[in-house]
Amino acid sequence: MSSIYPTLFVDLEIVKNNIAAMADKARKCNVEFRPHFKTHQSKEIGRIFREFDVSGITVSSVKMAKYFLNDGWDDITIAFPANALAINDYDDIASKCDLKTLVISEEVIRKLDQDLNQELGLYIEIDPDYGRSGLPISNINRIRSVLTEIHNSKHFYPAGFYCHAGHTYKSRSKEEVEETASAALNKLSDLKKHFPELPICFGDTPSCSVLEDFGPADQVSPGNFVFYDWMQVEIGSCTPNEIAVHMECPVIEKFENRNQVLIHGGAVHFSKDFVQVNGMKSFGEPRLKHLSKETYISSLSQEHGIIQCSPQVYKEIEIGEAIQIFPIHSCLTADLMQSYKTLEGRVIDHLSGTERPK
Amino acid sequence: MSSIYPTLFVDLEIVKNNIAAMADKARKCNVEFRPHFKTHQSKEIGRIFREFDVSGITVSSVKMAKYFLNDGWDDITIAFPANALAINDYDDIASKCDLKTLVISEEVIRKLDQDLNQELGLYIEIDPDYGRSGLPISNINRIRSVLTEIHNSKHFYPAGFYCHAGHTYKSRSKEEVEETASAALNKLSDLKKHFPELPICFGDTPSCSVLEDFGPADQVSPGNFVFYDWMQVEIGSCTPNEIAVHMECPVIEKFENRNQVLIHGGAVHFSKDFVQVNGMKSFGEPRLKHLSKETYISSLSQEHGIIQCSPQVYKEIEIGEAIQIFPIHSCLTADLMQSYKTLEGRVIDHLSGTERPK
Repeated sequence: MSSIYPTLFVDLEIVKNNIAAMADKARKCNVEFRPHFKTHQSKEIGRIFREFDVSGITVSSVKMAKYFLNDGWDDITIAFPANALAINDYDDIASKCDLKTLVISEEVIRKLDQDLNQELGLYIEIDPDYGRSGLPISNINRIRSVLTEIHNSKHFYPAGFYCHAGHTYKSRSKEEVEETASAALNKLSDLKKHFPELPICFGDTPSCSVLEDFGPADQVSPGNFVFYDWMQVEIGSCTPNEIAVHMECPVIEKFENRNQVLIHGGAVHFSKDFVQVNGMKSFGEPRLKHLSKETYISSLSQEHGIIQCSPQVYKEIEIGEAIQIFPIHSCLTADLMQSYKTLEGRVIDHLSGTERPK
Repeated sequence: MSSIYPTLFVDLEIVKNNIAAMADKARKCNVEFRPHFKTHQSKEIGRIFREFDVSGITVSSVKMAKYFLNDGWDDITIAFPANALAINDYDDIASKCDLKTLVISEEVIRKLDQDLNQELGLYIEIDPDYGRSGLPISNINRIRSVLTEIHNSKHFYPAGFYCHAGHTYKSRSKEEVEETASAALNKLSDLKKHFPELPICFGDTPSCSVLEDFGPADQVSPGNFVFYDWMQVEIGSCTPNEIAVHMECPVIEKFENRNQVLIHGGAVHFSKDFVQVNGMKSFGEPRLKHLSKETYISSLSQEHGIIQCSPQVYKEIEIGEAIQIFPIHSCLTADLMQSYKTLEGRVIDHLSGTERPK
């Protein structure tokens, strides 16, 4: 039975395989596996990780921490720099579990320390010259100063260093990922010499998928690998067979003069994230028997998606069928879709579909 | 009181002014005002339109049609090409109200006509050389053939022509909007000569904001104007004072060496839509007393936003304050945020926050 409206499917077999492979790698590499749950944001999918002896998890917001706390997770890192305004929420969560979050500046430590009641672990966020967030990895003086502030505080203890090498996402081959990730790990080795007692948490899906040795890192916290997506295929992190989610979108119309097909499936379903392939933007990749570089979602508006097709694919697609499409960025697609269907048709919850506005 | 987490505010005074101005223009131009509700997707905001004698509305999905039907709207156009699979939903909605939708091909008319029970109006979608969806405006033979198919069907009547000139979004001044919109209206005038009995529905926010005369059009269905956003400012449709929504995002950290500020506010709040200003991508525009071209959201990841600041703005922003930001694309931001707060702090519903996964 074809989907009448855009629907997000999850293949739980692939999910399990992806988790098993990453858990196995972490074990072999002797690093603690603290997976990031921001990609699936689902209690049920989270529970699969327990089968692989995961007990510490990573999330990206207070909201997500509360959601997984409610499902019995009791060792949670909010991998986002501490919000000086969120004292009540930190107290609330930390009163019920072992809570850690990130920090970058002495100022935020002082602000939070004044009014906090509970104890909290703080990872110092380290920027491996990626340029998004964190203390520059080479600035040992600043890092030492923040560590001193943590030691001098009443409520915080140092949890270690947290380092997200997000610039691996610019890679377009395993070799490029390895080069970028290795450069970050080399810098972390220098950091380790200064602070040998502090664990290092390292984690992004490209690095964790490609590397076989995490050098100075003690923990890994990749997230996207649970589903992967087309962006990860382009980066070199996975093969299409390892992508655990796909959209199913009805084919609405065909435009013969331009080999294009209109689907119901737009920016409110896929998100507007894209990859550049051969200079063309792709907002989604139809899952065909024979993958074709000429066939991709070439534009999205709110509800409309246009698939540019190879002549052969165009001929085969029919109005009224539903076409399967790999999302470019599974985290954002899942967040928009608000729930999953298993291949058997059972609905699985996603945080964004269970939150009610207050 | 500053927002602790990313929050979407709506200024209902500006909303009313925007609706009043567009309703007034439609009256003066002697066209029926059939506003598109895909931007606000809110029953409460929809009700404001009743004060301006609106009775026919436009939506972009079956889901949205049902949502507004439940609030008493009984003349609804789903401005999306008919989905050959959605017969049960069309029957359901059409049994309770006057339902119209779009159509492009004879094939879809035939498929639906077989199994439908209710009567439905069909607008033939016309592509004014925009290239997304619709029959080419110059192909009178194809248009006539589809019209004949409608006349020969058991369940459909011709509602007119629907024409979305989405290429006005490429404009960067009122003059450019006017040029593109006028070209589309000139072509519609030719169409009108062939089919003088059929009403033409025309509508996109740039055209409807800038034009003072809609030529051959009988109806207008703009949507975004209810809020506007920063993209519309760049296009030339509105001034910043006419934008009715803004995000409030907490300032998390400051990075002095690069005049950048980290906010909590990412792709799951704003969407990844952007505008190019002076060759730089902007994902959101801080609402400052003195707007600064040097200050804009320069990157977004899932929960992180980085604001590139002018040196002066950087100095003034403080960790722990909440900064107001105009979204680039208010339709997508509202869809992600799932609800609004009024300036008085009251919560207003959005469809995406009221839908429960089944």
